[in-house]
Amino acid sequence: MANGADTAATGVHADRGDIVISVDAMGGDRGPAAVVAGLAISAARHPGVRYLIHGDEATLSPLVARQAGLSSLVRIVHAERVVTMHDKPSQVMRSGAGTSMWSTIDSVKAGEAQAAVSCGNTGALMAVSMLRLRKVAGVNRPAIACLWPSRNPGGFNVMLDVGAGVEAEAEDLLQFATMGAAYARNGLSLKRPRVGLLNVGTEEHKGRAELRTAHDRMLEAAEAGGFDFVGFVEGGDIPSDRVDVIVTDGFTGNVALKTGEGTAKLVSDFLKEALGSGLLPKIGALLAMGSLKRLQRRIDPRRVNGGVFLGLNGTVVKSHGSADETGVAAAIGLAVQLARSGFVDRLAARVASTGRTGQDAAVAASEDGTKA
Amino acid sequence: MANGADTAATGVHADRGDIVISVDAMGGDRGPAAVVAGLAISAARHPGVRYLIHGDEATLSPLVARQAGLSSLVRIVHAERVVTMHDKPSQVMRSGAGTSMWSTIDSVKAGEAQAAVSCGNTGALMAVSMLRLRKVAGVNRPAIACLWPSRNPGGFNVMLDVGAGVEAEAEDLLQFATMGAAYARNGLSLKRPRVGLLNVGTEEHKGRAELRTAHDRMLEAAEAGGFDFVGFVEGGDIPSDRVDVIVTDGFTGNVALKTGEGTAKLVSDFLKEALGSGLLPKIGALLAMGSLKRLQRRIDPRRVNGGVFLGLNGTVVKSHGSADETGVAAAIGLAVQLARSGFVDRLAARVASTGRTGQDAAVAASEDGTKA
Repeated sequence: MANGADTAATGVHADRGDIVISVDAMGGDRGPAAVVAGLAISAARHPGVRYLIHGDEATLSPLVARQAGLSSLVRIVHAERVVTMHDKPSQVMRSGAGTSMWSTIDSVKAGEAQAAVSCGNTGALMAVSMLRLRKVAGVNRPAIACLWPSRNPGGFNVMLDVGAGVEAEAEDLLQFATMGAAYARNGLSLKRPRVGLLNVGTEEHKGRAELRTAHDRMLEAAEAGGFDFVGFVEGGDIPSDRVDVIVTDGFTGNVALKTGEGTAKLVSDFLKEALGSGLLPKIGALLAMGSLKRLQRRIDPRRVNGGVFLGLNGTVVKSHGSADETGVAAAIGLAVQLARSGFVDRLAARVASTGRTGQDAAVAASEDGTKA
Repeated sequence: MANGADTAATGVHADRGDIVISVDAMGGDRGPAAVVAGLAISAARHPGVRYLIHGDEATLSPLVARQAGLSSLVRIVHAERVVTMHDKPSQVMRSGAGTSMWSTIDSVKAGEAQAAVSCGNTGALMAVSMLRLRKVAGVNRPAIACLWPSRNPGGFNVMLDVGAGVEAEAEDLLQFATMGAAYARNGLSLKRPRVGLLNVGTEEHKGRAELRTAHDRMLEAAEAGGFDFVGFVEGGDIPSDRVDVIVTDGFTGNVALKTGEGTAKLVSDFLKEALGSGLLPKIGALLAMGSLKRLQRRIDPRRVNGGVFLGLNGTVVKSHGSADETGVAAAIGLAVQLARSGFVDRLAARVASTGRTGQDAAVAASEDGTKA
């Protein structure tokens, strides 16, 4: 397993370990072709990484064969059945064995892969992941963390929970802070992430009772959790540079995430309309094309594709259901990075540490790579 | 009082009634000069409307005198004290008499004005408004409604509550639906607004228990409330054209509002950076200037400045604290429009109607101008 220094976010890396990623090829809106194409992009970016891909072998074999050099890196694991977007999580928990999603998670459970990626049904994926991988000792409520384009030097902030649950008690929010900080260290290479608690104002008397309790608990736990607590933050701070990790319950986080995506889409559609009408604007847009493309890249949701499930005994990355090959490649790249950093073990150590504050600083310190 | 046909959103109107707007000149971040300048813009747009402005007379007199023709439309009501952004609502409720904010609301209470506008502290303004104007019979929890740029033909959707409270029961959400629909009829000139309930998914089994209860109650109440209920909507639907009124609790609404504003600001800052670097992009931006300005106007938060307090015996419009004269003029314009439409009486009738479904359709029908 690589050490803490190996947390670069993108680009081609020399492989330093025996990394295997388990990929669900089915269940996305664009079908297995988009997943295999994304896998080919990822394979070029991360030489040496190998893949297990789960789904219908007769469909997958020719798709893999078509991509030069991919066959040697990929092993297809045949799965008859597919979880659809309409399947209820409870159904899938009862009778999901034999689906490509279940098989994808089981490879991580069996230790054959270090991380899993799926474009499938979020609720079902969380249910299967919890059932098969189980929660990390000390974690009450797992969370889904997303990356959010921001003004920070690295270009992204982390927000959680964005939809694993629909509520959270003060203690859950505290665990989200610890887990989110661990993710920011391993996923964004931040030594000491700044954590903020989402509220409707920054004054300490504002908001719901559980938020005021969580506020005080986070102040106490920041040292053991290896983060700086910046206090309450507001919706406008999510893309700002005053915070790295935004903590909230799954309901609020999900609404905020979709509101942000919807607003960015609205503004960029309005921009297209504005530049598409009239000759001068069209010529202007043509001249500014390079810059506009860079802008689009900067706010492109496909680049930050990948919600990470935190608090389970295994790394699971949920890709957007509608992800194309670019989006799938981003999600797989995130899984590779987290697998390399030994993220799951580090997160577990950190949760154990903040749960028993002060008792095992040595375990916590090892997460930062200061001890082996 | 004008009839239901008079609900045009902008532009110069001939005055059809004896409309007086009560304006708090103090308490905004930019001071009374911005408020008086905004008032002058509004006076030009809405001939015949008169204004009471509340604050320090020695400061206000020269500001008013400087604007040609304004003196004859304005009466200054002297108030010694000012509510600051740091005053707690509870303090202001106890000892706020004598402040410009209190005086502004009292003019509406006394019937000297039909609507109030303030740039001051939101919590204090809501507290004073509730204390002095009292809730409409049948309303448990007032709400603040905002306008949101959208793909709808009118260019805006309504969202509430965006911060009067931090939670809401199912019955509160139902009242928000009724009040929001009434606002959309009188503020956006929509005959039969489409109401959606904000949730983390559109399937009926999703979300918190109170949302599922509210969902069923809204289905039942839609007919009496004069709206179409479109069911659950998600964050991405807020700026969409599938809904006109988005209902949520004050915590979620406030986070969504600030997240949307923050995201729009981020994208437009990124756009400016993209167009400001390099010669070709700069020339391109110059050629596209007109279109880019129209875009900026379309997403300019100052144009939709004005959160309206719903559920009180009087119309109160909260302007952004940082509003400049353009923003203040927009907030005053909204107050003029709602005063002209007799909004408060109509909302009260509608709330009474949905509270006792089926008993007084005649009262409700009068809101649409179908009965005098």
